Amino acid sequence: MKTKIGIIGGGQLALMLATNAVERGLDVNVLSENHHDPAVQVAKNWIKAQSDQISAVEKLALISDVITFESEFVSAAVLQRLAEKSFKQNYHCHAYPASRLMKKLSDRLSQKQLLEKHQIPTAPYVAVSDSAQLNKALTGHHEPKVLKSRLHGYDGKGTYIQHGGNLKGARDFVKTSTSGCIAEDFVPFKREIAISLARSQKGEIVTYPFVETKQENYRCLWVKGPIDANSARFRTLKSKLKKFVERIDYVGVISFEIFDTGTHLLINEIAPRVHNSAHYSQDCMSVSQFELHIRAILGLPLEQPRPLGSGFAMMNLIGTSTKLPQMKFVPGIKHHWYRKTENRPGRKMGHLNSLGSSPEAALKKVSAARKEWKL
Amino acid sequence: MKTKIGIIGGGQLALMLATNAVERGLDVNVLSENHHDPAVQVAKNWIKAQSDQISAVEKLALISDVITFESEFVSAAVLQRLAEKSFKQNYHCHAYPASRLMKKLSDRLSQKQLLEKHQIPTAPYVAVSDSAQLNKALTGHHEPKVLKSRLHGYDGKGTYIQHGGNLKGARDFVKTSTSGCIAEDFVPFKREIAISLARSQKGEIVTYPFVETKQENYRCLWVKGPIDANSARFRTLKSKLKKFVERIDYVGVISFEIFDTGTHLLINEIAPRVHNSAHYSQDCMSVSQFELHIRAILGLPLEQPRPLGSGFAMMNLIGTSTKLPQMKFVPGIKHHWYRKTENRPGRKMGHLNSLGSSPEAALKKVSAARKEWKL
Repeated sequence: MKTKIGIIGGGQLALMLATNAVERGLDVNVLSENHHDPAVQVAKNWIKAQSDQISAVEKLALISDVITFESEFVSAAVLQRLAEKSFKQNYHCHAYPASRLMKKLSDRLSQKQLLEKHQIPTAPYVAVSDSAQLNKALTGHHEPKVLKSRLHGYDGKGTYIQHGGNLKGARDFVKTSTSGCIAEDFVPFKREIAISLARSQKGEIVTYPFVETKQENYRCLWVKGPIDANSARFRTLKSKLKKFVERIDYVGVISFEIFDTGTHLLINEIAPRVHNSAHYSQDCMSVSQFELHIRAILGLPLEQPRPLGSGFAMMNLIGTSTKLPQMKFVPGIKHHWYRKTENRPGRKMGHLNSLGSSPEAALKKVSAARKEWKL
Repeated sequence: MKTKIGIIGGGQLALMLATNAVERGLDVNVLSENHHDPAVQVAKNWIKAQSDQISAVEKLALISDVITFESEFVSAAVLQRLAEKSFKQNYHCHAYPASRLMKKLSDRLSQKQLLEKHQIPTAPYVAVSDSAQLNKALTGHHEPKVLKSRLHGYDGKGTYIQHGGNLKGARDFVKTSTSGCIAEDFVPFKREIAISLARSQKGEIVTYPFVETKQENYRCLWVKGPIDANSARFRTLKSKLKKFVERIDYVGVISFEIFDTGTHLLINEIAPRVHNSAHYSQDCMSVSQFELHIRAILGLPLEQPRPLGSGFAMMNLIGTSTKLPQMKFVPGIKHHWYRKTENRPGRKMGHLNSLGSSPEAALKKVSAARKEWKL
């Protein structure tokens, strides 16, 4: 059995992958820049390097059976090297999700094109790479437009919302987005939702439930679920997404952020990795997204996750100052703390999970617990 | 908040305490002999030493807020040092469970005396330290007697069962037990059961359910639960055990192994620590024994554990050879692997947990999964 997992990245997602792996008897090797990165302490081996250093990735491959990614922002050169036949032959090490998919999904334009190709509903958009294209995209539209950098956008970074006719801010945004942008129609959503799927090397697919997510300042604040998803539009979308991951031969956990307009479900973004919107799975489902990602990339059998209660919720612990945070053990609440050495306003420092008699009851519990934490 | 836990010992119990601590944002320092000891890799600091080295324990205290024990077999000298006022003053570090209790509970004679003092039912016994006492204890009895070394007995080590009138084996056993023995009446039990409790520094007490345990060659093979414990004898015993831990001012998780004769419940042994009979709590209860032990010794609030299903079971993964084991991910089963570098017949290498529609259904699941592992 393959047992050695190399992770490019050392943040909280890598940490939670690593603690799960250790418990199951697997070894994790981490490539990251700083000794204090969350995942380093539970890694078997740590390679100190920037994630775009090809020689470091080769070192990681030398001691790992499989390589995976904490983030979709992997340099094109690294992805290309991972995809080369000589890489797989020299290091007997495959990368999952596949490099070609990481490349496509990390670029908002090619991600949109991929969704269109597979007839997955998403907001209308046009590519924008200069002022002329920007003028064309925005002129004559009275609805707001959302400009997104093609690369490196997350938690609101790389996003600009254009209201009204003054295009100065939008022009500056496009100018500084060296990789180009897309301009999307703003979707007047009723709520944001999400779903995560896992697909294994062997083609087995399992799904987490649809959940409601709440963003504040573009950052995930909380998640509650499961959503009552018996209606046709949910069933249709789920079935489309399962076919999508099958057709693109995706391996690992994949998460879809979705706008719910009340009548339509439109994919907002895809994250080709474990995702904040499924952290609840650690304590509220029969199997966590971290375990399923590990099993998926190692070619091990998956299992359909079951909720452990009738409702669940997750709340992020987001820094509000640079002061040392005060941890708090609240009975009935599971907290996960990322052990970051510095607190900062807006920084994700940890999260709280809880079961409840309903999604709302669970959300009340984590909200009350959040108030007891000093961040 | 106190966040730094020092553990004397580096085996699987220390490992599982450590992985829980890391997830919650706490730090674990481990004192153990070998770099390959299971807990070392997730420890923040590792002190390489034998557990009876007082200077090493002092080093551990220097970097820890609280010290706890993986095993009750701690040297008397270390326990004495931990109990000294100067130790607490110099290192600002307390040890839990308290040293005086560790000393009493690790000696089968003083453990028996403590149980008697608190009127907890246990098998009749006499102290035996030489041949004359042995003759007196065994002569004229037709029922088998169980000889137990006062110190260092576990998994059948330090136990001898006397059947019939030939006392040669018993005499040899007593001679080699330099710390003395006790001779207990053999209890003709219908089944063996167990219960674990946690009591915090602040005096809060919570209880796990009664579970049935199955021993084979003196080693725990499996555990299933919960037991239907509504009858008076279970309620009475539970209430007595709660009073017992309160009166002796015990802090931490404590486990009681119990003989069920069908009409009576007799305490067989006490383990002053997290225990194999409560490993199911990791995946089958709302809060695990490892988390409750940590909260208890840090003075944090506890919570009453709830089962996550109507039945649950645990099966140990016990080595049957010295060959490299083949791990197996079985859907629906949670495995925990202790990452020991050597397999040996009879060695506890890991365990399997599962929920089920009943204790029996859960046991069937872990039994079937066990067959898929090559140990």
